[in-house]
Amino acid sequence: MAIRIFITGGTFDKEYNELNGQLYFKDTHLSDLLELGRSRVQVEIRTLMMIDSLEMTDVDRDLIVHQCDNCEETQIVITHGTDTMSDTAKVLAKKIKDKTIILTGAMIPIKFGSSDGLFNLGSALAFAQTLSPGVYVAMNGRYFHADNVRKNKQTGVFEEVK
Amino acid sequence: MAIRIFITGGTFDKEYNELNGQLYFKDTHLSDLLELGRSRVQVEIRTLMMIDSLEMTDVDRDLIVHQCDNCEETQIVITHGTDTMSDTAKVLAKKIKDKTIILTGAMIPIKFGSSDGLFNLGSALAFAQTLSPGVYVAMNGRYFHADNVRKNKQTGVFEEVK
Amino acid sequence: MAIRIFITGGTFDKEYNELNGQLYFKDTHLSDLLELGRSRVQVEIRTLMMIDSLEMTDVDRDLIVHQCDNCEETQIVITHGTDTMSDTAKVLAKKIKDKTIILTGAMIPIKFGSSDGLFNLGSALAFAQTLSPGVYVAMNGRYFHADNVRKNKQTGVFEEVK
Amino acid sequence: MAIRIFITGGTFDKEYNELNGQLYFKDTHLSDLLELGRSRVQVEIRTLMMIDSLEMTDVDRDLIVHQCDNCEETQIVITHGTDTMSDTAKVLAKKIKDKTIILTGAMIPIKFGSSDGLFNLGSALAFAQTLSPGVYVAMNGRYFHADNVRKNKQTGVFEEVK
Repeated sequence: MAIRIFITGGTFDKEYNELNGQLYFKDTHLSDLLELGRSRVQVEIRTLMMIDSLEMTDVDRDLIVHQCDNCEETQIVITHGTDTMSDTAKVLAKKIKDKTIILTGAMIPIKFGSSDGLFNLGSALAFAQTLSPGVYVAMNGRYFHADNVRKNKQTGVFEEVK
Repeated sequence: MAIRIFITGGTFDKEYNELNGQLYFKDTHLSDLLELGRSRVQVEIRTLMMIDSLEMTDVDRDLIVHQCDNCEETQIVITHGTDTMSDTAKVLAKKIKDKTIILTGAMIPIKFGSSDGLFNLGSALAFAQTLSPGVYVAMNGRYFHADNVRKNKQTGVFEEVK
Repeated sequence: MAIRIFITGGTFDKEYNELNGQLYFKDTHLSDLLELGRSRVQVEIRTLMMIDSLEMTDVDRDLIVHQCDNCEETQIVITHGTDTMSDTAKVLAKKIKDKTIILTGAMIPIKFGSSDGLFNLGSALAFAQTLSPGVYVAMNGRYFHADNVRKNKQTGVFEEVK
Repeated sequence: MAIRIFITGGTFDKEYNELNGQLYFKDTHLSDLLELGRSRVQVEIRTLMMIDSLEMTDVDRDLIVHQCDNCEETQIVITHGTDTMSDTAKVLAKKIKDKTIILTGAMIPIKFGSSDGLFNLGSALAFAQTLSPGVYVAMNGRYFHADNVRKNKQTGVFEEVK
């Protein structure tokens, strides 16, 4: 069966507006990345929202939970801003027990050339195919259980809490 | 424990010679890629050879087997040319049973910008951390058992044999 | 004689801060660009300031005029933010008559991969070598006299006023 | 009036064939480059051939001369392989006296990311707009008269003969 990919925004998909010099969201680059990676993993992609994860509300997280719960796929990758990725993972972990859900993102926008997004996407898809049911964060080439992960604000690196 | 990475060359590490227009090998770009991916996976990197996989001999494969067998790490990633990656995987699978060995590579040189190498490296490191002992090829976002994989010469895509 | 290059900042040299998602200035990428372009033009590079051109003051412009006036070179390229590039060009044109001064910049930061900066730098250096004394803006592959140029805020394209 | 751009191939437009690892020609990337550079120079582009300049024959050069002679534009840029760029420049200089013709190219294929092609194209278009009638080579940010230029085979850099 296919892997479900849900898009929620985050640095991953930010663009540079030439006219005002601001970063903003337009469309997701997920399909481009999968093509760049010559991916042949069967996927179903759906954009749920396109926001900075600092602006993600409880209602937004409920929507993500609902979508993960109700899709027919049992392996799910969610692209998500890094700032509150751990929070969303915890919410998902409380509600969904029988699927393998991998949250991933990027520190550098994909459009800015030197992105970690392609690397993270490769690892997230691999973890989705191999980890047992549960909710995980896949960043920095590693995976973390939802209840034991945080982003270190000083270094930008994900790490275990305990 | 760290993941051992063995470099053998392949398209992954090819460079463009400005003076004669030929592709050639100089140094590996593995460390650059890991940095680009913001990888924090603990790795030990060693270059075993730097060759086109069409030129890989039985002696070369014996060396790879020997190195995999004798390193202390039990999770191993090998970068390898795609043309004979399946062959090397089969040789390794016959000899080594107690380690997780992932062969990966690229269709486009890393230096040429639009490489699948970063994507493949992300997935290979993830598979090395999660698959049970055995020898696998990680390409196109998927993993294949050593005894059931080939590169489709027409499409450049890896696929199951049976 | 060498071409003098003065750096003042602008989109050209903006970087992406991974930790807070803001754009900021660190060092100029001018030398990297010249190397990328395999430039063999003899140049003398000096950073005068590193600012967004919307924040450029009269004092800053006096400094630029002073530096252009007092350097020994007669061909000068100035990298500059696009928003007030035309303004600085006009100030320079009033004060300096005997040198060829070319202002150029970029709509996309160089670090973001798909930059027009490399293209503009190539044209600016060429115009500096060939145009008669005067002050010009070099953008979009074209050159404009200081007294007849503006940036179209809607399109981001430079155009003649009359 | 527009600048005429003639495409003849060269490293500029080489692609990497994923299936056999060879470099080859498909389509020109000239339009992509002009878009990347946000060029607003009015141009008319025509592909005359798509070859390695080491394989360029007298007949090919006659065709280039004929096209330059017969097009209505008086400013012409020709993209050309670097190995025999000086030779073609000399042939053109003997036949055409009343137009400004700029030959340019690249040491690294545009598709390989770190190309000097974008830089050279920017300078070539600028030189075409500013130099008096004659035939020139524009490489390394500089321009050379057709009768006083060669590519240094050891360094890959263009230089004066005398």
